[in-house]
Amino acid sequence: MDAKVLKFGGSSVGGFDKIRIIAEQLQERIQSGEKLIVVVSAMGRTTDELLTNINTLSSAPKEDHVALLLTTGEQQTISYLSIILENLGVRTKAMTGYQAGIKTFGGHMKSRIANIDQHAIESSLASYDVVVIAGFQGVNGEGEITTLGRGGSDTTAVALAARCNIPCEIYTDVEGLYATDPRLYSAASRIYEINYDEMMEMSALGAGVLETRCIEIAKNHSIPLYLGQTSSEKKGTWIMQETEIIERKAVTGIALDSNMMHVTLYEPRQDSTLIFDLFKQFDSHEVNIDMISQVINSGGFQLSFTVKGTDALQLHEILESIEEMHREMVTEVRTDRAKVSIIGSGMRDMTGVASKAFISLHQSDIPFYQTTTSEISISYVIDKKNETRAVEMLAGKFNI
Amino acid sequence: MDAKVLKFGGSSVGGFDKIRIIAEQLQERIQSGEKLIVVVSAMGRTTDELLTNINTLSSAPKEDHVALLLTTGEQQTISYLSIILENLGVRTKAMTGYQAGIKTFGGHMKSRIANIDQHAIESSLASYDVVVIAGFQGVNGEGEITTLGRGGSDTTAVALAARCNIPCEIYTDVEGLYATDPRLYSAASRIYEINYDEMMEMSALGAGVLETRCIEIAKNHSIPLYLGQTSSEKKGTWIMQETEIIERKAVTGIALDSNMMHVTLYEPRQDSTLIFDLFKQFDSHEVNIDMISQVINSGGFQLSFTVKGTDALQLHEILESIEEMHREMVTEVRTDRAKVSIIGSGMRDMTGVASKAFISLHQSDIPFYQTTTSEISISYVIDKKNETRAVEMLAGKFNI
Repeated sequence: MDAKVLKFGGSSVGGFDKIRIIAEQLQERIQSGEKLIVVVSAMGRTTDELLTNINTLSSAPKEDHVALLLTTGEQQTISYLSIILENLGVRTKAMTGYQAGIKTFGGHMKSRIANIDQHAIESSLASYDVVVIAGFQGVNGEGEITTLGRGGSDTTAVALAARCNIPCEIYTDVEGLYATDPRLYSAASRIYEINYDEMMEMSALGAGVLETRCIEIAKNHSIPLYLGQTSSEKKGTWIMQETEIIERKAVTGIALDSNMMHVTLYEPRQDSTLIFDLFKQFDSHEVNIDMISQVINSGGFQLSFTVKGTDALQLHEILESIEEMHREMVTEVRTDRAKVSIIGSGMRDMTGVASKAFISLHQSDIPFYQTTTSEISISYVIDKKNETRAVEMLAGKFNI
Repeated sequence: MDAKVLKFGGSSVGGFDKIRIIAEQLQERIQSGEKLIVVVSAMGRTTDELLTNINTLSSAPKEDHVALLLTTGEQQTISYLSIILENLGVRTKAMTGYQAGIKTFGGHMKSRIANIDQHAIESSLASYDVVVIAGFQGVNGEGEITTLGRGGSDTTAVALAARCNIPCEIYTDVEGLYATDPRLYSAASRIYEINYDEMMEMSALGAGVLETRCIEIAKNHSIPLYLGQTSSEKKGTWIMQETEIIERKAVTGIALDSNMMHVTLYEPRQDSTLIFDLFKQFDSHEVNIDMISQVINSGGFQLSFTVKGTDALQLHEILESIEEMHREMVTEVRTDRAKVSIIGSGMRDMTGVASKAFISLHQSDIPFYQTTTSEISISYVIDKKNETRAVEMLAGKFNI
């Protein structure tokens, strides 16, 4: 299929004036011969407003009812955008998640896409210039409406692109991808090309532009992904296969995650089941942990890891139930620490990145409490008070 | 199936406080062992607000996009009501029109129900106490979302009741059905029981409580229909089969239609095709005409009828195109007239109603320009200035 998927997020469609601007840009592209699949989120703060309404009605609403309510937001956006596009003479077909055959599995509010009805979309695109699809939503095996969880509309867009094997352009109100947060390091350079693995590390390690699952889908299907700023002439970022990127640096970016918890558990026994009990709990609470280090010696068993700050409540529940099983366990949860990561696939064959980083931190008097490395990244847990200094120093050293 | 369909209209669900009151009443009924199917409209003025938004975006929006937008209103109400019910411990399943398998045909915004998936609803009712269904909406053969037009949520409720062969209770903010409009005749008595035919005549002739199509469905399937006031202890009105009504009067009600046009067409030819051309036009414009009288004599051809005031624009278009075909035709459209109707199935076997009505109008100096009779009604076109006096006088004469 010769088409493209374009996705516009909540603040890009925050008002009718903004939707009209997007519609005019789509009209231009249609007139130059393109066929477009457009995925949109709910307008502006609609989803938050609906959630606020729910909070006044129930402290524990059922997820199927919440998903049913939230999905009206995207349904309204696709209606409005379609009405404006038709008014501009663009033949437009609007489709909700279930109409586009976006089948999901898993919980109602953290659903994952199982399949998409490519035929429904392709046959619509044969009769219309633009197919507008509601992001963030799908339908499960029981015919119930579901939502895809965080970054859901991005996932819808990338999954559609993967299913149809066409490129995907994601537009947000962010200016573009930087090698590190320009609020921390003003000399940070823009990244115009990055490969899937690096982008996944950047996202996972705190550069919150795209959810990792989106990049994963794009990678698995070799779908070129473009990150651009809505209604901006500025060049965005292409996320693509390594082989298509010409210039390469050892370090592509530096990510900082300030909102995390650093957890250390200690138990004076070597034959502990702690790690198994712990993983079972994290699994059932659907909480991800990162930077796992385990040390067993004659003194006992020690485990360190990091958890997202947004999972504080779940972490508390998990540790409480673990403490009941492991009475001798000593727990330390630190919220005054941050994770700084150096990312670059150049590390694979360019030596010296790790040693340069370790030496620099030492020379700058920035202590670190834990470090983990992957093939293309190195992460350090440091004191939060040192985070800005660490980013500036490393960005300077690696010339990003 | 041992259950009931309950329907709550827009003003009954105009705010969360009102929805909560309804939820508590449903909870009580569930606790006393009932199983309920609840149909709700969009909250308060939601539909109007969405239509206003559309008007700022396009002067001629496509009906499929409008229907897609409007149906989010009912979807939000079913979500909110379900969340509140679950919070009260009532096991609740929410269903949109398409989830309830409400299949429609015809235009996107004046759809008619072709079928309902009784199995989907019954199996939901087996696992839940209440099934909450979005009114006013369905899905057509192409899988597109449609709306049912005026009185759509009532139609959803009655059609569901008919499909499942169970009674239907319709709750509005109106106090109940009166023998005539109490604003015109303060002594008007309440009607507690009325048969389908009378109710259809009442509705068709101007007592705008229920759309005639709803009563027609109820009649065809012998579904008892109850009209009640939301959150009121007051007794409502049962619409049912003649045989179940114990006490009967000759005249059940008097209806007034003030918003109508009285049209007279004259053509000095006896062999006119006027009436055929006219009906073709009314059909293609989807305009209903009423009180049709035709006179042919040596002087020519004369046709009188009434049209709803809301169809003024279409009437104008129709008459323009008819005038082109019939150059000698003389047209008179009067907007200063009203239609007053006497309704009662007692007329079938109680004599004297018609003569009593004619004599009373004559004695009261109320001229009428046209009259038509059905088996259970008599209608008069009178001057609008006499409408209140006519209703008062007739109500008094027939002791309603």
